[in-house]
Amino acid sequence: MKFKPHLDALYRVNPPQGRDDYLRLDMNENPEGLPEAFVRNVLDGFSSGNLARYPEKVALTIELSDYLGVDPKSILFGNGSDDLIKSVYEVFGAPGTNVVSVYPTFEMYAVFAKMYDMEHKMLHYDSSTWSVRADDLIDLIDDRTAIVSVLNPNNPIGTVFTEDEVRRIIRRADEIGAVVVIDEAYHYFFDKTFLNLVAEYENVILLRTFSKLCSIAGLRIGFAVAAPEVAAYMGKVKTSYDVNNIAIEFARAIIRDKALIEALTSRERAGRAYIVQKLEASGHDYFAQNGNYVFIKCPEGVSPAEVSERMKEKGILIKTYSHPIFEGYFRITTGSKAVMEKFWNLYEQQFA
Amino acid sequence: MKFKPHLDALYRVNPPQGRDDYLRLDMNENPEGLPEAFVRNVLDGFSSGNLARYPEKVALTIELSDYLGVDPKSILFGNGSDDLIKSVYEVFGAPGTNVVSVYPTFEMYAVFAKMYDMEHKMLHYDSSTWSVRADDLIDLIDDRTAIVSVLNPNNPIGTVFTEDEVRRIIRRADEIGAVVVIDEAYHYFFDKTFLNLVAEYENVILLRTFSKLCSIAGLRIGFAVAAPEVAAYMGKVKTSYDVNNIAIEFARAIIRDKALIEALTSRERAGRAYIVQKLEASGHDYFAQNGNYVFIKCPEGVSPAEVSERMKEKGILIKTYSHPIFEGYFRITTGSKAVMEKFWNLYEQQFA
Repeated sequence: MKFKPHLDALYRVNPPQGRDDYLRLDMNENPEGLPEAFVRNVLDGFSSGNLARYPEKVALTIELSDYLGVDPKSILFGNGSDDLIKSVYEVFGAPGTNVVSVYPTFEMYAVFAKMYDMEHKMLHYDSSTWSVRADDLIDLIDDRTAIVSVLNPNNPIGTVFTEDEVRRIIRRADEIGAVVVIDEAYHYFFDKTFLNLVAEYENVILLRTFSKLCSIAGLRIGFAVAAPEVAAYMGKVKTSYDVNNIAIEFARAIIRDKALIEALTSRERAGRAYIVQKLEASGHDYFAQNGNYVFIKCPEGVSPAEVSERMKEKGILIKTYSHPIFEGYFRITTGSKAVMEKFWNLYEQQFA
Repeated sequence: MKFKPHLDALYRVNPPQGRDDYLRLDMNENPEGLPEAFVRNVLDGFSSGNLARYPEKVALTIELSDYLGVDPKSILFGNGSDDLIKSVYEVFGAPGTNVVSVYPTFEMYAVFAKMYDMEHKMLHYDSSTWSVRADDLIDLIDDRTAIVSVLNPNNPIGTVFTEDEVRRIIRRADEIGAVVVIDEAYHYFFDKTFLNLVAEYENVILLRTFSKLCSIAGLRIGFAVAAPEVAAYMGKVKTSYDVNNIAIEFARAIIRDKALIEALTSRERAGRAYIVQKLEASGHDYFAQNGNYVFIKCPEGVSPAEVSERMKEKGILIKTYSHPIFEGYFRITTGSKAVMEKFWNLYEQQFA
């Protein structure tokens, strides 16, 4: 068989399994999920006929276009926003081109670069200031750049670019015909959006997901907003029925319910405020900005692996890293105050 | 922006919408779906936590490997089997190579050929015998062939290749390093399977779906069985969370329930026998072999468009074609006897 040779070096991590019985603070899902009554109400609307029927997305597309105030033709759904990132690479990436991003970032940007045989030009964090400069990202863009990725805020540190910085990145990318992916996975946990830039610049692809605040990572749905021509080309490289009926109906119910979104947002904010106060009072170093996660430095003499192992014994999953710059740090997903109290009480007993 | 030029010519059809209120005999779904009690039972197992958690496929993979009697490493799930066809093209297809198939067949084989800038070498039906010869398919395979597709049975006529013919196709493909996709979307409606050939030939990729007999097209799940190395390469080009939690749990419940599969199969057989008897008695030309569909020649002086339009007015969707060879024919999906009676009574009133 003739496997494409560049795929030999592409190593994929098997997703973790058996997480049902744990308090999940490792993957930035909502650890508690949607209100149970809301879930039952949507699921009760399904019958055998709905499940047997191939999915239909047009009603959701129109409702989302109203919700966002954008042209329905500028919206494209995907089987999670990672599926849409893949479409961006499929349409714009090619061997010999490169993708530019801050690094570390969401891991799939690097995986897709290898998948499509592209160079990945990474802007690394300054380890003394834990910051990145937009000008340095702009300097990495060259004639071979096809895609610039801006996860804003950038997990796990929560760094953000200003609108002026993002505009400069977009304009530089546009000079050489590159697209800029603005990944707003952590929208709702961060007030600023760059949705307004989609109408201004044809080379902007804005992504959002229903997996984080909207609490349906298990159902797989995200969307892109881009110029209609860009959305159409991304749609060309997708399968016809990429998003399932249940995800579609949950998405419709969620965007209809403003009170739900406000309740989910304020629950997380209260939990984040609680854990920040505890970390502050106990003298931890940490980053807790602009996302449903807190990035925490281990106490002296304790390794992230040890925190992870001992918390897992207590029924809580956290996230550790192999990147050298993150040595000594771990990340927890934030949730309601009750969830954060549970984490903190068990953590404090052992480490604080 | 630099769209890949070959995508300019790739035209995608928008999937039909608003099918909920019709009896759906147009897309080979199960028009009635799973038993309602079965659906409720699986849905009742879901809570907000399951929906919030990223999907896990390993338990299903192990259960399916037991069910099929194959190595778990040879199984790969996808977001519908079309998603797995796409992975085959991504791993093995490239500009300058070709894909060989009978034509017409499942439309996505042609769409993916354009998507990956490949030539599509088509073996057309002999319009006098409505048949295709395996040797003619073998003759189309050349040094540039990357993929041979065998939808068996081939919708909408229901033609099949014998095991000897399929073995000869596989061996010819293997000589030039091509893979053979054996697409068993219509498994259960046709007794013969080529699953046994996966263990014998490294270049075979067998596909099945849960969208047809298993009645969950709306949930999106299918699987490939292939040599572990082939399955691993196909897995490299996929997103990490391609199949949603609800599809996974329905698939687990369906393969556990042998009586359900038998009941679904015998319901469809009874319905197919009924409609065949009616078509026969009324002197129609038709093909009704090896799939949950019947391909029917319109009565003299009636066009497929007219049948489609008048049946739609009565609340029933059917499938028509633009391929010249299918001129004068339409297809209906088969279902239970009750469903087929409903179709026939309305059809007979107008056309028979």
